[in-house]
Amino acid sequence: MNEFELIAKLTHSLPTNKSVVVGAGDDCAVLDLGVADKLFLFKTDAVVEGVHFTKDTPPEKIGRKALARCLSDIAAMAGTPQHAVVTLGLPRDFDAAFVEKIYAGLAEVAHGHGVAIVGGETTTNPVILLNLALLGFAPRGKCVLRSGAEVGDAIFVTGELGGSLAGRHLDFEPRLAEARWLAEHFPPHAMIDLSDGLAGDLKHILAASKVGAELLTRSIPVSRAAKLAGKAGDTAKPALLAALTDGEDFELLFTVAAKDAVALLDAWKAKFPGTRLTCIGKITSGPGLALRDGRGVMPFTGAGYVHFATS
Amino acid sequence: MNEFELIAKLTHSLPTNKSVVVGAGDDCAVLDLGVADKLFLFKTDAVVEGVHFTKDTPPEKIGRKALARCLSDIAAMAGTPQHAVVTLGLPRDFDAAFVEKIYAGLAEVAHGHGVAIVGGETTTNPVILLNLALLGFAPRGKCVLRSGAEVGDAIFVTGELGGSLAGRHLDFEPRLAEARWLAEHFPPHAMIDLSDGLAGDLKHILAASKVGAELLTRSIPVSRAAKLAGKAGDTAKPALLAALTDGEDFELLFTVAAKDAVALLDAWKAKFPGTRLTCIGKITSGPGLALRDGRGVMPFTGAGYVHFATS
Repeated sequence: MNEFELIAKLTHSLPTNKSVVVGAGDDCAVLDLGVADKLFLFKTDAVVEGVHFTKDTPPEKIGRKALARCLSDIAAMAGTPQHAVVTLGLPRDFDAAFVEKIYAGLAEVAHGHGVAIVGGETTTNPVILLNLALLGFAPRGKCVLRSGAEVGDAIFVTGELGGSLAGRHLDFEPRLAEARWLAEHFPPHAMIDLSDGLAGDLKHILAASKVGAELLTRSIPVSRAAKLAGKAGDTAKPALLAALTDGEDFELLFTVAAKDAVALLDAWKAKFPGTRLTCIGKITSGPGLALRDGRGVMPFTGAGYVHFATS
Repeated sequence: MNEFELIAKLTHSLPTNKSVVVGAGDDCAVLDLGVADKLFLFKTDAVVEGVHFTKDTPPEKIGRKALARCLSDIAAMAGTPQHAVVTLGLPRDFDAAFVEKIYAGLAEVAHGHGVAIVGGETTTNPVILLNLALLGFAPRGKCVLRSGAEVGDAIFVTGELGGSLAGRHLDFEPRLAEARWLAEHFPPHAMIDLSDGLAGDLKHILAASKVGAELLTRSIPVSRAAKLAGKAGDTAKPALLAALTDGEDFELLFTVAAKDAVALLDAWKAKFPGTRLTCIGKITSGPGLALRDGRGVMPFTGAGYVHFATS
């Protein structure tokens, strides 16, 4: 059983109540707390030493990444983050100065996005673990789910993909402003942030929306890091496969009506000249994800990054 | 540096925003999300194998305890819990059936208290770790903080204290109904739930309220488990010390105006006949915590349970 199968099984029949608009299964939960013009977004996520960072990772970057990952999930719903609570797991022999630097990295990102850190717990854990829970909001009617993709939609992705492990996974900027602008001007039918890899995360949209997709391989924006890694030797992953399957890009993947695609690209260039936006394919009736290249169309079966798997 | 000193240092100057009514430092954060008659409560907390439970703990009880601990913090503010998100850390060789039982324990407690579980993440961790983040609310004006204790107040505690490790720490019922009834009928000036031990947690109230306290040792309700443990041998902790310093009682400790003490005790007996409520002392101008016994009054310097300490 892999990570996704386990989560699906665990979250299949969880207790709910009438204030839950969207429960487990999207980037954030969506809650109706009784505010006329807003819905609230609720998300939790952890980074763990040896999994999401190493013993050599500068502590500020650990704090930075932990919060930025959660912010990216708020972005995926076109939301605005507001409050965070922190759980920090520490080995018994922790170094207080190191821990203060983790918090400094956290605080810097929080400050930059207007997020209040309103609680901090510590506990003993064999390795450093930093869990964030984040509360945010979206204007009622502007929140974007994974489940709204429609056959014929154009599929877009921000930035360049693959090779994040070379450094970007510690330094990425969550696409909060971009997502809010999209929701305002070109409301996406479906959106997700790329944490498990383009192919894996697109499949989450396809499953939630009950559609398929066809990507044009030559249009997929491959990062320089993925290209460099692809030249590193015989055991290296080809750059295109890296762009399709490497995790932790933290870019936005979304679909809009095909008729709006050109206007979106023009408006985006004027608004976010420093950030690439690429149309990489279209939503089909499916099933599944297919790749089109010079030789034709073939189903893509490789998975994205999966955190663990059992037999 | 111990746990409390570290948390105090880390949470000293965290980013905030104008919707934060109470930030880090109370049982929960208190947020004003723009609902006329409610304030919202936000809390996170983790249980870790080898710290809060053992390899032998039945998985349902791990799930139960993780959520019940957070619910106890909502109770300490006289709140109502509403939504939870879960992070589950698992060793790479985890057993899916064991994990499902953890979730079953979680779901049972959630269901019993009307809590929706709206998100579930998993990650790899060397040992089992279960983090909960909880969102709740309290009627505006009814939320009870640690900081309101006044000189002359009577100090009350629910239940019986000490020896929780013998079993109660896995089976306690968070005092949500009791706390809400108190807020409605005998609004406490200050309240906290007992997680670090009576003496340690009372000191949190004293520090937040800038007062002192005097406890009458013979009035402290010592649990049967603490008495039994106290007879276990020369190395055992005396039962009274256990009641003062053992962690994880998850009872309510609160102060009310002395004039209301007798009426409260009478009304409590009628409302909660199965749960002991004891007046254990009074708030003084301080400083610090003192114990009064047959021989006189002396300062109490022993600490409650502290999760870890560094040199």
